Amino acid sequence: MKNSGLYKLFIDELEDMYSAENQIVKALPKMIKQASLPDLKEGLTNHLEETENQVARLENIFSILGMKATEKECEGMKGILKEGDEMIKNKTKSPTLDAAIISAAQKVEHYEIASYGTLRSFAKHLDLPEEVADLLQENLDEEGAANKKLTKLADGSFFSAGVNDEAAAGKREKAKH
Amino acid sequence: MKNSGLYKLFIDELEDMYSAENQIVKALPKMIKQASLPDLKEGLTNHLEETENQVARLENIFSILGMKATEKECEGMKGILKEGDEMIKNKTKSPTLDAAIISAAQKVEHYEIASYGTLRSFAKHLDLPEEVADLLQENLDEEGAANKKLTKLADGSFFSAGVNDEAAAGKREKAKH
Repeated sequence: MKNSGLYKLFIDELEDMYSAENQIVKALPKMIKQASLPDLKEGLTNHLEETENQVARLENIFSILGMKATEKECEGMKGILKEGDEMIKNKTKSPTLDAAIISAAQKVEHYEIASYGTLRSFAKHLDLPEEVADLLQENLDEEGAANKKLTKLADGSFFSAGVNDEAAAGKREKAKH
Repeated sequence: MKNSGLYKLFIDELEDMYSAENQIVKALPKMIKQASLPDLKEGLTNHLEETENQVARLENIFSILGMKATEKECEGMKGILKEGDEMIKNKTKSPTLDAAIISAAQKVEHYEIASYGTLRSFAKHLDLPEEVADLLQENLDEEGAANKKLTKLADGSFFSAGVNDEAAAGKREKAKH
Protein backbone atom coordinates (compact mmCIF):
# COMPACT_ATOMS: atom_id res chain seq x y z
CA MET A 1 0.00 0.00 0.00
CA LYS A 2 2.95 2.32 0.64
CA ASN A 3 3.66 2.40 -3.09
CA SER A 4 0.13 3.42 -3.98
CA GLY A 5 -0.67 6.87 -5.35
CA LEU A 6 -3.08 7.47 -2.47
CA TYR A 7 -0.34 6.85 0.11
CA LYS A 8 1.88 9.40 -1.65
CA LEU A 9 -1.04 11.83 -1.68
CA PHE A 10 -1.60 11.18 2.06
CA ILE A 11 2.05 12.02 2.82
CA ASP A 12 1.80 15.11 0.64
CA GLU A 13 -1.25 16.32 2.61
CA LEU A 14 0.45 15.44 5.91
CA GLU A 15 3.50 17.53 5.00
CA ASP A 16 1.18 20.34 3.87
CA MET A 17 -0.62 20.30 7.25
CA TYR A 18 2.69 20.15 9.14
CA SER A 19 3.64 23.36 7.36
CA ALA A 20 0.17 24.87 7.97
CA GLU A 21 0.24 24.16 11.74
CA ASN A 22 3.74 25.60 12.05
CA GLN A 23 2.63 28.73 10.18
CA ILE A 24 -0.31 29.07 12.61
CA VAL A 25 1.98 28.74 15.67
CA LYS A 26 3.90 31.73 14.31
CA ALA A 27 0.80 33.79 13.40
CA LEU A 28 -1.33 33.34 16.54
CA PRO A 29 0.73 35.49 18.97
CA LYS A 30 0.13 38.57 16.77
CA MET A 31 -3.61 37.89 16.69
CA ILE A 32 -3.67 37.40 20.48
CA LYS A 33 -1.80 40.69 20.97
CA GLN A 34 -4.26 42.61 18.78
CA ALA A 35 -7.44 41.14 20.35
CA SER A 36 -9.34 43.15 22.98
CA LEU A 37 -12.30 40.97 23.97
CA PRO A 38 -11.15 38.84 26.93
CA ASP A 39 -13.01 35.71 25.70
CA LEU A 40 -11.32 36.05 22.29
CA LYS A 41 -7.86 36.63 23.77
CA GLU A 42 -8.27 33.64 26.08
CA GLY A 43 -9.71 31.43 23.32
CA LEU A 44 -6.83 32.19 20.96
CA THR A 45 -4.25 31.69 23.76
CA ASN A 46 -5.73 28.24 24.52
CA HIS A 47 -5.76 27.47 20.82
CA LEU A 48 -2.07 28.33 20.49
CA GLU A 49 -1.34 25.66 23.11
CA GLU A 50 -3.65 23.22 21.29
CA THR A 51 -1.87 24.00 18.00
CA GLU A 52 1.50 23.16 19.56
CA ASN A 53 0.03 19.82 20.65
CA GLN A 54 -1.33 19.28 17.14
CA VAL A 55 2.17 19.81 15.72
CA ALA A 56 3.42 17.16 18.16
CA ARG A 57 0.64 14.75 17.07
CA LEU A 58 1.66 15.21 13.41
CA GLU A 59 5.29 14.49 14.37
CA ASN A 60 4.02 11.37 16.13
CA ILE A 61 2.27 10.26 12.90
CA PHE A 62 5.45 10.77 10.83
CA SER A 63 7.31 8.70 13.42
CA ILE A 64 4.70 5.88 13.37
CA LEU A 65 5.10 5.78 9.57
CA GLY A 66 8.89 5.61 9.96
CA MET A 67 9.50 9.03 8.46
CA LYS A 68 11.17 12.30 9.43
CA ALA A 69 8.65 15.12 9.97
CA THR A 70 8.91 17.33 6.88
CA GLU A 71 7.15 20.51 5.84
CA LYS A 72 5.82 21.09 2.32
CA GLU A 73 4.99 24.78 2.21
CA CYS A 74 1.21 25.11 2.56
CA GLU A 75 0.19 27.72 -0.03
CA GLY A 76 -3.43 27.70 1.16
CA MET A 77 -2.53 28.63 4.75
CA LYS A 78 0.04 31.13 3.50
CA GLY A 79 -2.69 32.94 1.53
CA ILE A 80 -5.21 32.80 4.39
CA LEU A 81 -2.71 34.17 6.92
CA LYS A 82 -1.48 36.86 4.50
CA GLU A 83 -5.07 38.01 4.06
CA GLY A 84 -5.64 37.93 7.83
CA ASP A 85 -2.47 39.88 8.50
CA GLU A 86 -3.50 42.59 6.03
CA MET A 87 -6.86 42.87 7.82
CA ILE A 88 -5.38 43.33 11.29
CA LYS A 89 -1.96 44.97 10.94
CA ASN A 90 -1.54 48.62 11.96
CA LYS A 91 -5.11 48.70 13.29
CA THR A 92 -6.17 50.21 16.61
CA LYS A 93 -7.81 47.79 19.03
CA SER A 94 -11.60 47.91 18.67
CA PRO A 95 -14.65 45.64 18.44
CA THR A 96 -14.26 45.83 14.63
CA LEU A 97 -10.67 44.59 14.89
CA ASP A 98 -11.93 41.72 17.09
CA ALA A 99 -14.46 40.93 14.34
CA ALA A 100 -11.67 40.87 11.75
CA ILE A 101 -9.56 38.57 13.95
CA ILE A 102 -12.48 36.17 14.44
CA SER A 103 -13.12 36.15 10.68
CA ALA A 104 -9.46 35.38 9.92
CA ALA A 105 -9.31 32.69 12.62
CA GLN A 106 -12.43 30.94 11.27
CA LYS A 107 -10.89 30.75 7.80
CA VAL A 108 -7.82 29.12 9.40
CA GLU A 109 -10.00 26.63 11.31
CA HIS A 110 -12.05 25.73 8.23
CA TYR A 111 -8.93 25.03 6.17
CA GLU A 112 -7.78 22.68 8.90
CA ILE A 113 -11.18 20.99 9.23
CA ALA A 114 -11.15 20.28 5.46
CA SER A 115 -7.59 18.98 5.53
CA TYR A 116 -7.90 16.76 8.63
CA GLY A 117 -11.17 15.36 7.25
CA THR A 118 -9.33 14.38 4.06
CA LEU A 119 -6.33 12.93 5.93
CA ARG A 120 -8.57 10.84 8.22
CA SER A 121 -10.53 9.54 5.23
CA PHE A 122 -7.30 8.61 3.36
CA ALA A 123 -5.88 6.92 6.51
CA LYS A 124 -8.95 4.69 6.68
CA HIS A 125 -8.89 3.79 2.96
CA LEU A 126 -5.17 3.01 3.25
CA ASP A 127 -5.75 0.86 6.32
CA LEU A 128 -3.00 2.72 8.23
CA PRO A 129 -2.43 1.90 11.93
CA GLU A 130 -5.48 2.90 13.97
CA GLU A 131 -3.32 5.25 16.06
CA VAL A 132 -2.76 7.42 12.95
CA ALA A 133 -6.51 7.85 12.35
CA ASP A 134 -7.01 8.51 16.11
CA LEU A 135 -4.36 11.26 16.19
CA LEU A 136 -5.90 12.90 13.11
CA GLN A 137 -9.35 12.64 14.69
CA GLU A 138 -8.08 14.37 17.87
CA ASN A 139 -6.74 17.28 15.81
CA LEU A 140 -9.96 17.42 13.77
CA ASP A 141 -12.11 17.47 16.93
CA GLU A 142 -10.06 20.32 18.43
CA GLU A 143 -10.35 22.41 15.27
CA GLY A 144 -14.10 21.81 15.15
CA ALA A 145 -14.48 22.88 18.80
CA ALA A 146 -12.28 25.98 18.28
CA ASN A 147 -14.39 26.98 15.27
CA LYS A 148 -17.65 26.58 17.22
CA LYS A 149 -16.33 28.84 19.99
CA LEU A 150 -15.42 31.48 17.40
CA THR A 151 -18.91 31.28 15.82
CA LYS A 152 -20.44 31.78 19.28
CA LEU A 153 -18.28 34.88 19.80
CA ALA A 154 -19.13 36.24 16.32
CA ASP A 155 -22.87 35.73 16.81
CA GLY A 156 -22.80 37.07 20.39
CA SER A 157 -24.27 40.37 21.54
CA PHE A 158 -20.82 41.88 22.15
CA PHE A 159 -20.57 42.81 18.50
CA SER A 160 -23.78 44.81 18.20
CA ALA A 161 -23.08 46.48 21.55
CA GLY A 162 -19.40 47.13 20.82
CA VAL A 163 -19.92 48.28 17.26
CA ASN A 164 -22.79 50.61 18.27
CA ASP A 165 -20.59 52.15 20.97
CA GLU A 166 -17.85 52.56 18.36
CA ALA A 167 -20.24 54.23 15.86
CA ALA A 168 -21.63 56.51 18.60
CA ALA A 169 -18.08 57.45 19.65
CA GLY A 170 -17.30 58.22 15.99
CA LYS A 171 -20.32 60.55 15.77
CA ARG A 172 -19.31 62.37 18.98
CA GLU A 173 -15.81 62.74 17.54
CA LYS A 174 -17.18 64.26 14.34
CA ALA A 175 -19.54 66.59 16.28
CA LYS A 176 -16.54 68.07 18.08
CA HIS A 177 -14.85 69.23 14.87
CA MET B 1 -24.30 52.36 10.39
CA LYS B 2 -22.69 52.75 6.95
CA ASN B 3 -19.86 54.74 8.53
CA SER B 4 -19.11 52.07 11.12
CA GLY B 5 -15.93 50.04 11.05
CA LEU B 6 -17.96 46.83 10.89
CA TYR B 7 -19.78 47.99 7.75
CA LYS B 8 -16.44 48.71 6.09
CA LEU B 9 -15.22 45.26 7.18
CA PHE B 10 -18.41 43.71 5.75
CA ILE B 11 -17.79 45.39 2.36
CA ASP B 12 -14.17 44.28 2.48
CA GLU B 13 -15.24 40.65 3.04
CA LEU B 14 -17.91 40.94 0.33
CA GLU B 15 -15.34 42.16 -2.21
CA ASP B 16 -12.99 39.36 -1.09
CA MET B 17 -15.72 36.75 -1.70
CA TYR B 18 -16.64 38.31 -5.06
CA SER B 19 -13.00 37.77 -6.07
CA ALA B 20 -12.99 34.25 -4.58
CA GLU B 21 -16.14 33.15 -6.45
CA ASN B 22 -14.81 34.54 -9.73
CA GLN B 23 -11.52 32.68 -9.20
CA ILE B 24 -13.51 29.46 -8.60
CA VAL B 25 -15.53 29.94 -11.83
CA LYS B 26 -12.21 30.05 -13.69
CA ALA B 27 -10.67 27.06 -11.82
CA LEU B 28 -13.56 24.56 -11.88
CA PRO B 29 -13.49 23.67 -15.62
CA LYS B 30 -9.91 22.34 -15.23
CA MET B 31 -10.94 20.22 -12.23
CA ILE B 32 -13.98 18.89 -14.14
CA LYS B 33 -11.78 17.99 -17.12
CA GLN B 34 -9.30 16.07 -14.93
CA ALA B 35 -11.96 14.12 -12.95
CA SER B 36 -12.76 10.52 -13.91
CA LEU B 37 -15.46 9.39 -11.47
CA PRO B 38 -18.83 10.23 -13.08
CA ASP B 39 -20.39 11.35 -9.75
CA LEU B 40 -17.45 13.72 -9.16
CA LYS B 41 -17.54 15.10 -12.71
CA GLU B 42 -21.29 15.66 -12.47
CA GLY B 43 -21.09 17.17 -8.97
CA LEU B 44 -18.39 19.67 -10.00
CA THR B 45 -20.31 20.55 -13.20
CA ASN B 46 -23.44 21.29 -11.15
CA HIS B 47 -21.35 23.28 -8.70
CA LEU B 48 -19.92 25.42 -11.51
CA GLU B 49 -23.49 26.43 -12.40
CA GLU B 50 -24.23 27.08 -8.69
CA THR B 51 -21.06 29.20 -8.42
CA GLU B 52 -22.19 31.33 -11.36
CA ASN B 53 -25.50 31.89 -9.54
CA GLN B 54 -23.57 32.75 -6.36
CA VAL B 55 -21.62 35.41 -8.27
CA ALA B 56 -24.98 36.84 -9.46
CA ARG B 57 -26.30 36.85 -5.83
CA LEU B 58 -23.21 38.79 -4.68
CA GLU B 59 -23.78 41.28 -7.51
CA ASN B 60 -27.38 41.58 -6.31
CA ILE B 61 -26.13 42.39 -2.77
CA PHE B 62 -23.78 45.11 -4.08
CA SER B 63 -26.73 46.56 -6.01
CA ILE B 64 -29.05 46.49 -2.93
CA LEU B 65 -26.35 48.40 -1.03
CA GLY B 66 -26.11 50.94 -3.89
CA MET B 67 -22.61 49.90 -4.89
CA LYS B 68 -20.81 48.69 -8.00
CA ALA B 69 -19.67 45.05 -7.68
CA THR B 70 -15.92 45.21 -7.04
CA GLU B 71 -13.29 42.51 -6.52
CA LYS B 72 -10.62 42.73 -3.82
CA GLU B 73 -8.15 39.99 -4.71
CA CYS B 74 -8.80 37.08 -2.35
CA GLU B 75 -5.34 35.90 -1.25
CA GLY B 76 -6.80 32.93 0.66
CA MET B 77 -8.59 31.48 -2.39
CA LYS B 78 -5.55 32.26 -4.57
CA GLY B 79 -3.37 30.13 -2.27
CA ILE B 80 -5.92 27.30 -2.02
CA LEU B 81 -6.37 27.15 -5.82
CA LYS B 82 -2.61 27.37 -6.45
CA GLU B 83 -2.10 24.41 -4.11
CA GLY B 84 -4.95 22.50 -5.81
CA ASP B 85 -3.56 23.22 -9.26
CA GLU B 86 -0.11 21.91 -8.25
CA MET B 87 -1.75 18.71 -6.99
CA ILE B 88 -3.66 17.99 -10.19
CA LYS B 89 -1.73 19.48 -13.12
CA ASN B 90 0.09 17.17 -15.53
CA LYS B 91 -1.38 14.11 -13.76
CA THR B 92 -2.89 11.12 -15.53
CA LYS B 93 -6.54 10.44 -14.71
CA SER B 94 -6.83 7.93 -11.85
CA PRO B 95 -8.71 7.31 -8.59
CA THR B 96 -5.81 9.05 -6.80
CA LEU B 97 -6.24 12.12 -8.99
CA ASP B 98 -9.97 12.07 -8.14
CA ALA B 99 -8.99 11.96 -4.45
CA ALA B 100 -6.72 14.99 -4.94
CA ILE B 101 -9.50 16.88 -6.74
CA ILE B 102 -11.98 16.12 -3.93
CA SER B 103 -9.43 17.26 -1.35
CA ALA B 104 -8.80 20.56 -3.20
CA ALA B 105 -12.52 21.15 -3.72
CA GLN B 106 -13.27 20.62 -0.01
CA LYS B 107 -10.68 23.25 0.94
CA VAL B 108 -12.42 25.65 -1.46
CA GLU B 109 -15.83 24.85 0.05
CA HIS B 110 -14.61 25.29 3.63
CA TYR B 111 -13.10 28.69 2.86
CA GLU B 112 -16.46 29.75 1.48
CA ILE B 113 -18.41 28.30 4.41
CA ALA B 114 -16.22 30.33 6.82
CA SER B 115 -16.57 33.51 4.79
CA TYR B 116 -20.33 33.32 4.17
CA GLY B 117 -20.86 32.51 7.87
CA THR B 118 -18.94 35.68 8.79
CA LEU B 119 -20.76 37.82 6.21
CA ARG B 120 -24.18 36.59 7.36
CA SER B 121 -23.28 37.28 10.99
CA PHE B 122 -22.04 40.82 10.14
CA ALA B 123 -25.20 41.51 8.05
CA LYS B 124 -27.36 40.67 11.07
CA HIS B 125 -25.31 42.79 13.50
CA LEU B 126 -25.43 45.68 11.01
CA ASP B 127 -29.19 45.29 10.57
CA LEU B 128 -28.81 45.26 6.78
CA PRO B 129 -31.92 44.61 4.62
CA GLU B 130 -33.19 41.07 5.21
CA GLU B 131 -32.71 40.27 1.52
CA VAL B 132 -28.94 40.63 1.97
CA ALA B 133 -28.84 38.06 4.79
CA ASP B 134 -31.13 35.75 2.76
CA LEU B 135 -28.88 35.89 -0.32
CA LEU B 136 -25.81 35.14 1.84
CA GLN B 137 -27.69 32.26 3.50
CA GLU B 138 -28.57 30.78 0.08
CA ASN B 139 -24.89 30.81 -0.93
CA LEU B 140 -23.88 29.38 2.46
CA ASP B 141 -26.45 26.57 2.18
CA GLU B 142 -25.24 25.63 -1.31
CA GLU B 143 -21.59 25.51 -0.18
CA GLY B 144 -22.55 23.34 2.80
CA ALA B 145 -24.48 20.92 0.56
CA ALA B 146 -21.63 20.78 -1.99
CA ASN B 147 -19.14 20.00 0.78
CA LYS B 148 -21.35 17.19 2.16
CA LYS B 149 -21.57 15.58 -1.30
CA LEU B 150 -17.76 15.70 -1.57
CA THR B 151 -17.35 14.10 1.89
CA LYS B 152 -19.73 11.30 0.80
CA LEU B 153 -17.61 10.71 -2.31
CA ALA B 154 -14.34 10.77 -0.29
CA ASP B 155 -15.67 8.32 2.29
CA GLY B 156 -17.28 6.07 -0.35
CA SER B 157 -16.14 2.63 -1.35
CA PHE B 158 -14.95 3.81 -4.78
CA PHE B 159 -11.67 4.94 -3.27
CA SER B 160 -10.64 1.68 -1.65
CA ALA B 161 -11.78 -0.23 -4.74
CA GLY B 162 -10.18 2.20 -7.23
CA VAL B 163 -6.96 2.59 -5.32
CA ASN B 164 -6.59 -1.16 -4.84
CA ASP B 165 -7.11 -1.67 -8.56
CA GLU B 166 -4.51 1.03 -9.21
CA ALA B 167 -1.99 -0.57 -6.85
CA ALA B 168 -2.63 -4.00 -8.41
CA ALA B 169 -2.17 -2.54 -11.91
CA GLY B 170 1.09 -0.94 -10.74
CA LYS B 171 2.35 -4.33 -9.50
CA ARG B 172 1.41 -5.99 -12.81
CA GLU B 173 3.20 -3.17 -14.66
CA LYS B 174 6.34 -3.71 -12.56
CA ALA B 175 6.18 -7.49 -13.05
CA LYS B 176 6.33 -6.98 -16.83
CA HIS B 177 9.65 -5.13 -16.71
